[in-house]
Amino acid sequence: MKRKNNKLGHYCGIAGIFARDEINIPEHLFYALFSLQHRGQESCGISYRKGDQLVVYKDLGMVAPVLSRYLQENRLSNVGIGHVRYSTHGGNKVENVQPIMVSCNKGTIALAHNGNLSNTRELKQKLFSDGSIFQSTSDSEVILHLISRSRKTDFYGALKETLGQMEGAFSLAMVHDNSLVLTRDPLGFRPLYIGSRDGVTYAASETCALDTLGVKEYRSVDAGELTIIDKNGVHTERFAPKGPKKQCIFELIYFARPDSSVFDTSVHLTRKRMGAALAACETVSADIVVPVPDSGNIAALGCAEASGLPFEMGLQRNHYAGRSFIMPTTAERELAVRMKLHPVKTAVMDKRIILIDDSIVRGTTSRTLVKLLKDAGAKEVHLRLSSPEIKWPCYFGIDTPTRDELISNRKNPEELAAHIGADSVKFLPIDKLASCVENPEDFCYACFSGSYPVDVSQINNNGACL
Amino acid sequence: MKRKNNKLGHYCGIAGIFARDEINIPEHLFYALFSLQHRGQESCGISYRKGDQLVVYKDLGMVAPVLSRYLQENRLSNVGIGHVRYSTHGGNKVENVQPIMVSCNKGTIALAHNGNLSNTRELKQKLFSDGSIFQSTSDSEVILHLISRSRKTDFYGALKETLGQMEGAFSLAMVHDNSLVLTRDPLGFRPLYIGSRDGVTYAASETCALDTLGVKEYRSVDAGELTIIDKNGVHTERFAPKGPKKQCIFELIYFARPDSSVFDTSVHLTRKRMGAALAACETVSADIVVPVPDSGNIAALGCAEASGLPFEMGLQRNHYAGRSFIMPTTAERELAVRMKLHPVKTAVMDKRIILIDDSIVRGTTSRTLVKLLKDAGAKEVHLRLSSPEIKWPCYFGIDTPTRDELISNRKNPEELAAHIGADSVKFLPIDKLASCVENPEDFCYACFSGSYPVDVSQINNNGACL
Amino acid sequence: MKRKNNKLGHYCGIAGIFARDEINIPEHLFYALFSLQHRGQESCGISYRKGDQLVVYKDLGMVAPVLSRYLQENRLSNVGIGHVRYSTHGGNKVENVQPIMVSCNKGTIALAHNGNLSNTRELKQKLFSDGSIFQSTSDSEVILHLISRSRKTDFYGALKETLGQMEGAFSLAMVHDNSLVLTRDPLGFRPLYIGSRDGVTYAASETCALDTLGVKEYRSVDAGELTIIDKNGVHTERFAPKGPKKQCIFELIYFARPDSSVFDTSVHLTRKRMGAALAACETVSADIVVPVPDSGNIAALGCAEASGLPFEMGLQRNHYAGRSFIMPTTAERELAVRMKLHPVKTAVMDKRIILIDDSIVRGTTSRTLVKLLKDAGAKEVHLRLSSPEIKWPCYFGIDTPTRDELISNRKNPEELAAHIGADSVKFLPIDKLASCVENPEDFCYACFSGSYPVDVSQINNNGACL
Amino acid sequence: MKRKNNKLGHYCGIAGIFARDEINIPEHLFYALFSLQHRGQESCGISYRKGDQLVVYKDLGMVAPVLSRYLQENRLSNVGIGHVRYSTHGGNKVENVQPIMVSCNKGTIALAHNGNLSNTRELKQKLFSDGSIFQSTSDSEVILHLISRSRKTDFYGALKETLGQMEGAFSLAMVHDNSLVLTRDPLGFRPLYIGSRDGVTYAASETCALDTLGVKEYRSVDAGELTIIDKNGVHTERFAPKGPKKQCIFELIYFARPDSSVFDTSVHLTRKRMGAALAACETVSADIVVPVPDSGNIAALGCAEASGLPFEMGLQRNHYAGRSFIMPTTAERELAVRMKLHPVKTAVMDKRIILIDDSIVRGTTSRTLVKLLKDAGAKEVHLRLSSPEIKWPCYFGIDTPTRDELISNRKNPEELAAHIGADSVKFLPIDKLASCVENPEDFCYACFSGSYPVDVSQINNNGACL
Repeated sequence: MKRKNNKLGHYCGIAGIFARDEINIPEHLFYALFSLQHRGQESCGISYRKGDQLVVYKDLGMVAPVLSRYLQENRLSNVGIGHVRYSTHGGNKVENVQPIMVSCNKGTIALAHNGNLSNTRELKQKLFSDGSIFQSTSDSEVILHLISRSRKTDFYGALKETLGQMEGAFSLAMVHDNSLVLTRDPLGFRPLYIGSRDGVTYAASETCALDTLGVKEYRSVDAGELTIIDKNGVHTERFAPKGPKKQCIFELIYFARPDSSVFDTSVHLTRKRMGAALAACETVSADIVVPVPDSGNIAALGCAEASGLPFEMGLQRNHYAGRSFIMPTTAERELAVRMKLHPVKTAVMDKRIILIDDSIVRGTTSRTLVKLLKDAGAKEVHLRLSSPEIKWPCYFGIDTPTRDELISNRKNPEELAAHIGADSVKFLPIDKLASCVENPEDFCYACFSGSYPVDVSQINNNGACL
Repeated sequence: MKRKNNKLGHYCGIAGIFARDEINIPEHLFYALFSLQHRGQESCGISYRKGDQLVVYKDLGMVAPVLSRYLQENRLSNVGIGHVRYSTHGGNKVENVQPIMVSCNKGTIALAHNGNLSNTRELKQKLFSDGSIFQSTSDSEVILHLISRSRKTDFYGALKETLGQMEGAFSLAMVHDNSLVLTRDPLGFRPLYIGSRDGVTYAASETCALDTLGVKEYRSVDAGELTIIDKNGVHTERFAPKGPKKQCIFELIYFARPDSSVFDTSVHLTRKRMGAALAACETVSADIVVPVPDSGNIAALGCAEASGLPFEMGLQRNHYAGRSFIMPTTAERELAVRMKLHPVKTAVMDKRIILIDDSIVRGTTSRTLVKLLKDAGAKEVHLRLSSPEIKWPCYFGIDTPTRDELISNRKNPEELAAHIGADSVKFLPIDKLASCVENPEDFCYACFSGSYPVDVSQINNNGACL
Repeated sequence: MKRKNNKLGHYCGIAGIFARDEINIPEHLFYALFSLQHRGQESCGISYRKGDQLVVYKDLGMVAPVLSRYLQENRLSNVGIGHVRYSTHGGNKVENVQPIMVSCNKGTIALAHNGNLSNTRELKQKLFSDGSIFQSTSDSEVILHLISRSRKTDFYGALKETLGQMEGAFSLAMVHDNSLVLTRDPLGFRPLYIGSRDGVTYAASETCALDTLGVKEYRSVDAGELTIIDKNGVHTERFAPKGPKKQCIFELIYFARPDSSVFDTSVHLTRKRMGAALAACETVSADIVVPVPDSGNIAALGCAEASGLPFEMGLQRNHYAGRSFIMPTTAERELAVRMKLHPVKTAVMDKRIILIDDSIVRGTTSRTLVKLLKDAGAKEVHLRLSSPEIKWPCYFGIDTPTRDELISNRKNPEELAAHIGADSVKFLPIDKLASCVENPEDFCYACFSGSYPVDVSQINNNGACL
Repeated sequence: MKRKNNKLGHYCGIAGIFARDEINIPEHLFYALFSLQHRGQESCGISYRKGDQLVVYKDLGMVAPVLSRYLQENRLSNVGIGHVRYSTHGGNKVENVQPIMVSCNKGTIALAHNGNLSNTRELKQKLFSDGSIFQSTSDSEVILHLISRSRKTDFYGALKETLGQMEGAFSLAMVHDNSLVLTRDPLGFRPLYIGSRDGVTYAASETCALDTLGVKEYRSVDAGELTIIDKNGVHTERFAPKGPKKQCIFELIYFARPDSSVFDTSVHLTRKRMGAALAACETVSADIVVPVPDSGNIAALGCAEASGLPFEMGLQRNHYAGRSFIMPTTAERELAVRMKLHPVKTAVMDKRIILIDDSIVRGTTSRTLVKLLKDAGAKEVHLRLSSPEIKWPCYFGIDTPTRDELISNRKNPEELAAHIGADSVKFLPIDKLASCVENPEDFCYACFSGSYPVDVSQINNNGACL
């Protein structure tokens, strides 16, 4: 089944490794990217130093088919980066796959980027008029042009000048010479972690990748931080002053893996708190709490625990459904959902159900799910979302449909309940959501509120630069 | 990651369809087999009537890559069968893929078989001496030889004669002429369901496949029943008298999907009862109940509910890990497990854990899991299995390792706990397990007890015929 | 471009190897089959002894993609056989791929077969009524059934009994136990050679494969000969008395590679003689002799030499055109030919051309070629074929279209010339063809004359058994 | 078999199409590129206008597997270009595949390039210091940077300024807006033809591609010509004054297909003249003339005709050998050649042979061929080359090994004869070669003479810019 945009989509996940003594860098990048696969399933790639050269290998496809060859080859190296990428807009598919590697007057540079710049239009117009050529539509190419164009003659001077020009969301991993470079935008939209084990420094978007690699101690790369790891050790500085952050709350709601920490916050515990917050708002009587697997699992657990209602796995997910195939046009929408999610009749029969999911984008899947549960004998289905209504596009690294396609812009909860056939629909209010994290003012809620933390007037509705 | 036999493996799942008015049979078989994918992931195939011919298409690989082409092609037909198959023994891989199709003096016949005959040796020796040739090592070929060799001149006479000669486990779906033939052995080892919708009759190993196809009403094909569906309707008879059954209890413990019914029994409810039964035996104090996902999920839920302890998703499963790749020899065993299962630190830290899985085969995964949980801060880990100790091989359609490899033949629970580093290990006793189903005497417990319901002296230790 | 049956097609080529001391049998089979690729491009396979087992690997596709993996793996073994196969009739494609391997009361046997039995119907009817089952439509399965069914208890007794029952064309290579078995039908329709080098015995359909393997001395396996090679050496006997042969003259006209010998006859020299025989019949004045590459090359050379006219490569063949793709329906027939064959304008401009090809089947390609040459400025095009008119189907291992599709059954040479736009068309008469070989009475000319050397009444028009 | 650099290699072939009324541009590009496959077999690609966008599709591999999908899809369009590419240097494989497409201040541009610039180093250093970034190592990217950097604000002004800066060999096809742009360097190193049919303008490196497309009338794009085709028609101008040309003589000796014209010269006729020129120099007595197929075919024909000796196809080529596989390390060099070329014993036995090939690069294949012929019974083998000794690398679009690897820099003809085991070796002298073309002063002979027509001091030994 081709993705139908029923969930929000990430743009990517990144990883980086620096080893004082050579190790099989591609093998370790494989483990890291495999653990970040949920952040991007359309393409992936790695770049690493091979002798005195920097090489890149990338392709459309998932980590296992594209990169597992590296498990069988010993590519001793000191440094490398990797990237997993989500769906692309439009036709130029392969061109946008990362890492992107260029040679320029600052040397050879490989870059992996998670995020979206918000001033791409302005930057690109300047570059265009100065004669730059673009082979992709990715922001990453803009960054590399800026570094190369900088009057500073050294790479780090040029990089810092460039970082000062960039606005919006960016967590970057780069290789330059024999060094690994890590940085995060001053508002810290996207996560990035760094840790070390046995003399090797690892970086990854989420801690689950570092856990897989056996790294015991790690920390968040700070917003506005620039860190360079090379033979001389780890050098950390700030390219922007410390200030309020605007970390993506949706990483905690849906994107990050439950066993990860992002923004120094446990995803698992936060989702349980969201479920508990939903329980605190609850007014209807029900028999069981059922998650939409797997996105609603942890919030449902939190809700059940807080409400005292039994947690019940009333929907079975067919995990083989991730493997893609195209449904025939004759097949009903309902069938497509049934290929992936199935009601467990004996669990839901005659029950009043609190059904928990993380969010609603277009509402199509929810409609079918409610019907399946009711057909299976559920007496009532009350849909609860562990997030507020999504009404605004994200311009900082998440693939949101247009405002028109966001169902919460067209229907209030009551209308939505009628539309999807649920007995009621409720969203977690923004203030309750904010109460689930420790420093709520350090998070971005723009997709709910429309209050963007930076100027987004250069960006069109689709998140692409004008 | 190649399967390392850490779980017991099914031999297969089957499906069949008969449509009075032609429909796209391969498309519908795809949906059915896709829902039975958990019963066999190594190969799959379909056979259906195409005009006046019977055709077969089968290959190594999973349902989506091998058969999804049929979603785009309209192959109108009245009848077809399908098969998913688990790993094969030894080298002749492709030859054993099903359905198997032959032409003989009874016409052209396609057969899909779930189960294992226990008198193959005797049957095959007779066929050998009579001059039969064998192109595979599967029992299915034996069945077709018997039908062809029968002195009865009509197909159904020959089939019934053949069924009378077969011992052991078999659920069969066949196509002959324009008819679909379904049958189950007199002891009913393997499940098989039949139902209809909009004038089309569907059959499948588990009800989840029928649910996916929108079939609302279905029934179990009875043990000893022979049912033929053709233009004249559904004709059911018995080829063996009704008697005590020996249905595979492991279908309920582990194989079948939780949303299925098998043997007229809800898998979900039975697993919850097993969890409750474990809770009833519990003597240690603990803080949380954690399932090994996904095999321990429902039993853990039942255990938590019954014990009043919080249910906690303390292990995160990477569902991309199903996609196969070969780990390098340098990688530690621990890493291989970490690629698939990850402790959720914030959920297990400082906790005394009841860890629930369905069974232990070799014990290698359990050992790593316990270590991961303890490294993540778990204070105690008490492993509980929702099945008794597996000590005997299954000769009725399940891939069991040799007796020596079954860890319960080498270590008692205390030794096992020491071996895997758990604070304690307990199994569900056979009598408690039996109390979780309605008619316990209608089930086979041979893999726990060694009391085989039929003579297995012809079969060697590996489940292959001598 | 999919084959459009514009040339006659072979059914296959075979090879066999026995090595006293183990060698990498699959690697050597690869070299042999690669050199026999022109005899069958649709599928290929090998079977060889691996330890105490016989294994088989085969698939649809050409030798390089299907079997080149064996160049990288050292599979030490004593014995193996291989097969390349031409297009199959109808749907059951994979099932007919060879070698075919079975186990039966005579042991495990692998068989590779080149040819076609003419009494398959009778044999198969007997086997059907005795209860045999058939998984393919190939004659090879019939042979194995007969061996297994034989009352003789030893393999060789059974094999000889079976050979006595078989009528028609067969060159066979088999593996049984640790021995390689080679045999040819009493009329010797298809070629088979045997030779040795460095203690290894090699067999192949054509000598070009033995040349590739560096074998210096070889001989034809005689018609009616049965040869067994094992640790005890080479044992040769006759299963049928010596008598007149009916070797396929088309092997010399078109199928075999020019550098091969078949039937103790040089293909190259014989084709040159055919060209000279055409020259001797010539009555028109012309400027140059042009071959249709590559099938007409050698005969054209012989014709040019004998006639004193210049040999000119007036048509250029695009050898990449062997790689298959499907032409869009909108493309004209002419374009399809132009993708493969191109007139060399500067060579043919203003010339009166003797155009030489080996034969005409349907006439479609010839028509386009004549048009291309005339468009390129040729003044006259006189088509000459180094074979008589093909009017009858072959039942002995060649894929012929139905009688209706053979253009020589619908048009005499004058009509044919008008049809294809040539200034004249002439065929080599049967008696002139016969004069090109040493023992003309030892060859089969049935496709030209309709005088079949054995009873073909059991066979239908398409060469398949009734 | 992987290419071992035994023949010189082209860098590429290009094609372009402009249709006033929309046609299936990709389908037509497929036909053109398929006919240019001999100019580059490692990768291929097309770029065409799709609605208001320019799109590109390219990959490693040959035309049929990479692009045949376009035969089944109707992509109506006005304009497109295509490229086939030969082996790449070093690792960054995919990045160098063409066409290359960029967006810049001159719009979106796609470019396909045949040739090599000789002042890349100078151009690139300037671009580097101005801040350009390079994603590939191809000259094509340099060209696009120059266009974008130009102070001229319109595309054509910028293009002409860029053409004025470029030195060396370049035949270019570009798409910009809705126009097709074609141009050739002032010395005309590489061929490029243009013609039209049914209101569609086609361009291709060789006329054989235009013939395949049914184009009857075409002309050479002139050296120093810039031609733009759009809705307003064909606009041709010169960007450089007419002057002496330096066309690559090796196109006539080896690269171009015999049925092509390049540089207004028939390849077929020229090769025949080269063969005749060899015959005129001949002093030894011989029995037959044998070509090394296919590269020596036409020259051998010319030699045989001029000398009155019989032309004999004494070597058989296995055309399946183009399909690549890697020979095992244990296989001898001799076997690798025998997989591809085979002596025809009955043609060469006891003969004194004039063996004709186009050129010698490393001499390894020749050595094996001579041995094969002698083993097959040849009495004498006299190797004749239809080109002079290659002693200098080409910097204008041909892949030459280093000077050390060129055997003619290490051995004179006598030493070479001894080395390869031939009875004698002779090369066609430069002056005799020159006499085979009409305007010998309009050709480049630098690979024989070392007299480069432009300054090559910026280029290193491998043809890559320093």
